[in-house]
Amino acid sequence: MKVNPVFRDVGMSKIVEVSERARLLAPDFEKQSGKSFIYFQRGEVGYKVAPFILDGYKEAIEKGFTKYPKSGGESFFKDAIAEYYADLNLDPENIIAVHGGQEGLQLIFNLYRGKKCAILTPCWSCMFDNIFPYTETEFVSVPLIKRGWQIDFDLLEKTFKRDDVEMFYFNSPHNPTGRVFPREDIDRLLLLCAKYGILFISDEAYSELAYSGTHYSPLENGEYENVVSINTFSKSFAATGFRVGYVISRRTDIIENLVKGNYTQTAGVATPTQYAFSKALLHPARNEWMQSYRKEMSARAEVLADVLDPIFDAHPPEGAFYSFFRPVEMVDNISYLDQEFAVCDRLMKNGIAVVPGSAFGEDFKGYVRLSFSTLNTEIIREGAQRFNEVILGS
Amino acid sequence: MKVNPVFRDVGMSKIVEVSERARLLAPDFEKQSGKSFIYFQRGEVGYKVAPFILDGYKEAIEKGFTKYPKSGGESFFKDAIAEYYADLNLDPENIIAVHGGQEGLQLIFNLYRGKKCAILTPCWSCMFDNIFPYTETEFVSVPLIKRGWQIDFDLLEKTFKRDDVEMFYFNSPHNPTGRVFPREDIDRLLLLCAKYGILFISDEAYSELAYSGTHYSPLENGEYENVVSINTFSKSFAATGFRVGYVISRRTDIIENLVKGNYTQTAGVATPTQYAFSKALLHPARNEWMQSYRKEMSARAEVLADVLDPIFDAHPPEGAFYSFFRPVEMVDNISYLDQEFAVCDRLMKNGIAVVPGSAFGEDFKGYVRLSFSTLNTEIIREGAQRFNEVILGS
Repeated sequence: MKVNPVFRDVGMSKIVEVSERARLLAPDFEKQSGKSFIYFQRGEVGYKVAPFILDGYKEAIEKGFTKYPKSGGESFFKDAIAEYYADLNLDPENIIAVHGGQEGLQLIFNLYRGKKCAILTPCWSCMFDNIFPYTETEFVSVPLIKRGWQIDFDLLEKTFKRDDVEMFYFNSPHNPTGRVFPREDIDRLLLLCAKYGILFISDEAYSELAYSGTHYSPLENGEYENVVSINTFSKSFAATGFRVGYVISRRTDIIENLVKGNYTQTAGVATPTQYAFSKALLHPARNEWMQSYRKEMSARAEVLADVLDPIFDAHPPEGAFYSFFRPVEMVDNISYLDQEFAVCDRLMKNGIAVVPGSAFGEDFKGYVRLSFSTLNTEIIREGAQRFNEVILGS
Repeated sequence: MKVNPVFRDVGMSKIVEVSERARLLAPDFEKQSGKSFIYFQRGEVGYKVAPFILDGYKEAIEKGFTKYPKSGGESFFKDAIAEYYADLNLDPENIIAVHGGQEGLQLIFNLYRGKKCAILTPCWSCMFDNIFPYTETEFVSVPLIKRGWQIDFDLLEKTFKRDDVEMFYFNSPHNPTGRVFPREDIDRLLLLCAKYGILFISDEAYSELAYSGTHYSPLENGEYENVVSINTFSKSFAATGFRVGYVISRRTDIIENLVKGNYTQTAGVATPTQYAFSKALLHPARNEWMQSYRKEMSARAEVLADVLDPIFDAHPPEGAFYSFFRPVEMVDNISYLDQEFAVCDRLMKNGIAVVPGSAFGEDFKGYVRLSFSTLNTEIIREGAQRFNEVILGS
């Protein structure tokens, strides 16, 4: 029986591929070299989940919040979100609980299946490997300006002018460049979307993780209502394994449709999970926990930026968990650089796993993404030093 | 911007509609009559979730099982399933963790989007309202024989003979008739599917809830490998709110595709949830808990069957949570019976919510589904007595 072709088109993530290769090579490397294998490839969070999450589950189960969730999300969950974003004056109809940012994105792109979407590249690999093929979204890449990862507004407007672009996917703090785009940029993007009637899809997975600069949600602008903001607790509570997030939009018709999709796909996010995270969001210990978490992540970002050789000219991470740069210009005379994975391979053989740049857009062959979220500062230092040595051949 | 038409086609569940109407009418009814409003409409489980589930969450969080789940399910989860079904000799490749039976069904029908599927009717309403429209599945109804809810094998074979039927959806213990189909029937269905090369989709949500007769999974037959078995912990652990289940198939190519869909949609089932339920499945207290749970549900079934007037000729529930029958033949002389919801309306006004039969297939107008899972035996007795009075006019 012939399968739905979108299942064939969904690919294995290059990040998973790298991780599996690393898992195979690491034991031998560690045995032979006496050094640790260093995992710079993962978007996982190497930090203990906020301890008060467990209290929430306990209370949920004791109080009987264990029955079918209400379609689209429990009232207590939506109330907590609305309270957290008090300045936005949200109604329950503006909010839906989803299984992490991933479901939020899959649902919105499925709602507009087959439409054309402009994206800034480099772009989170899962969009290319999973979300776009699964929802038959046609994407048009608008590369960021490679020096400093600025938005090329002229190129973006040219792309918007094609009348078949109907959506714009945006992510800040940004995976993989680590940029936190400033308010002025985002306001300008909103104006551009308004001018061409384009739906602004704002992936705010890393909203709590801005180290320099301040995260600004396009919802705060308030002038343009065609905004869908996708949020998750995965990164903000170091809770990647709990699969819970939320989507916010002034467009209640969109939220209503997402509720249909979410209900059909899974009957909704687990009630005790909604309970635990709504409590966590407003928990008295939240701010203190969040501060130490952010401080640790910021320190990791700093060590990576400090130790990487300045010759790479890597933009220091302003937020999220990543540094994205092109080390290979340094060794242009070596023939195997034509092969896309050559640098990554050389790093791998020297006990460092990174993600090849092409995972984030075809314009980024030769780039690498280093994630600093899973490792402590000591290992990051060791890893960055070894990275320098491997690439610069010293 | 035009939305994906499947979102328009997904409807609001009639059960939800009834529930919302009941919620509006109940306070007035209770105030005016001094009697309780009786909710016979819900497929919810009115029984406390197994208490050892919480231990599992606690252990998961303490041990750090809080990170991204492995695609398709954690090894410990699959190992627990394989151990639980030891006789089936399952490999991890035969199993995927999903967000409840609902996601299992949505994924398999999405994998075969647009195909034709034969179903026995009456059939779980969510298939009509959600799964089939969302996945563009064309269904062909094969009504059960109304006296005794037997399978009409001749009609089914005639339907299979149409060369465009490629799937068969089957559910036992059965929602809404409460039947537990015997092994002989299921073996015969498998032979028929084998004869016509049809994929057998077996929804086993109520597998632990057979009161008379024994649940038999088509996987046990072992002769026909084109079987996909959809399972959930919702009903078996009174854990509807936790959204966790699993799909089993010998067809590893199918499981592999479901993994792609599940990963793309949600990045997988929450790791601590997988941990808690894998522990629960093999928990030393499980059998004892399950026995008292089954005993209670069986007692509820019995009271309903005993108290309903024999004139309705309702088939006594053998499993699941439901009784499905046609009370209206009794009052054929009353004109408003032409209106589909008339009986349900009359019941509602007398403080009883039931689901109208047409929610389960267009051949079942005038039928009602009574669910006994949410109420204790005393309320079921009161409700069934009142039901008799309202319908029989005494």
